[in-house]
Amino acid sequence: MRAPRKENGPKFLDKRMEVLRAAARVFARRGFHRASLGDVADELQVTPAALYYYAKSKDELLQSCGLLALEELSEALTTVRRKGQNGLDRLHMFFRFYARIICDDFGRCFVMTSVDDLPGAMQHDLIDGRQRVDREVQSMIREGIADGSIQPCDTRFLSEMLFAATHRIPHWWSPKGPLSPAQVVDEYFQILMGGIAPAREEP
Amino acid sequence: MRAPRKENGPKFLDKRMEVLRAAARVFARRGFHRASLGDVADELQVTPAALYYYAKSKDELLQSCGLLALEELSEALTTVRRKGQNGLDRLHMFFRFYARIICDDFGRCFVMTSVDDLPGAMQHDLIDGRQRVDREVQSMIREGIADGSIQPCDTRFLSEMLFAATHRIPHWWSPKGPLSPAQVVDEYFQILMGGIAPAREEP
Repeated sequence: MRAPRKENGPKFLDKRMEVLRAAARVFARRGFHRASLGDVADELQVTPAALYYYAKSKDELLQSCGLLALEELSEALTTVRRKGQNGLDRLHMFFRFYARIICDDFGRCFVMTSVDDLPGAMQHDLIDGRQRVDREVQSMIREGIADGSIQPCDTRFLSEMLFAATHRIPHWWSPKGPLSPAQVVDEYFQILMGGIAPAREEP
Repeated sequence: MRAPRKENGPKFLDKRMEVLRAAARVFARRGFHRASLGDVADELQVTPAALYYYAKSKDELLQSCGLLALEELSEALTTVRRKGQNGLDRLHMFFRFYARIICDDFGRCFVMTSVDDLPGAMQHDLIDGRQRVDREVQSMIREGIADGSIQPCDTRFLSEMLFAATHRIPHWWSPKGPLSPAQVVDEYFQILMGGIAPAREEP
């Protein structure tokens, strides 16, 4: 990896993105504490010295990976707002995007690491971004209850259950398996939609 | 903390249990990597030297805490098998126990740390124990489907959703809040039982 002439030029940014993707993969796979910048250099097959040209520190890499994941999530929210027919439809559509994103490099790193691993000043934007996603999901549920597409329920517990189940997907999902991340979300929604209690017979 | 005369005598075992509880709290709170034996000694307000009398290493403490959590889970499984009326009843009863256990010291440590933090040889019993719990939960679901208390569904995805949602509880639950861990599980079951799709009107 040779340093291109201009910093912030397109070549620099391409290489920087390559470094970030490699860092995201390494942090998610090894855990942030166990991973070293040397591991990231190995993943890219470059020397640690070459890496330093594109990355200030391990902390800065983790923060940038998190912000890129939040950008992907923000785009998903925009699409869902534009295309979803009603609250339930938006909720389901969003979690399909969410599962896909967190099974990809930046999103996987985002859910497999903790903002607590970063110094306080580097946490703010990541915490804000995550809270925005939480708020949007709770709004979708409330809208669904208001428009009749979702049965009245405790907004917070439904949101918790969906995030919890979806967050587990990158821990076991493999591209070699039969289902895509979005299809796994469909399975969860299928159970959640009809419920697990057997239908009562009409009197 | 003065060393009692006999190792393995009741006083030694009481103190050892005190050390394990403190270690479990520290590992869960700080994360295993960030936590040091010095932090455990601080939690107990003893010197690190006094601690070494009761604990060989950080790894050994984590392993012992995990095995104690598995013992609590194993007792819960026995009670559920003895008292549960049908598959759904056993499933619900087990997750009420499970939530209570993982919001207590050893269980919290068990779900907040990873067996990957331990050397291979120390992982086996913990992995076996966890797999046994998974298998038992899947059996309860299959039994519930067979006895008509649970609607036919994908056993694995229902089990995943229940574990995922319950595992999140120790991350946000506080004894100062209005609900006990078991009552939080009741909230999840309430959503899961009836489902979120609005009841269809009869034709």
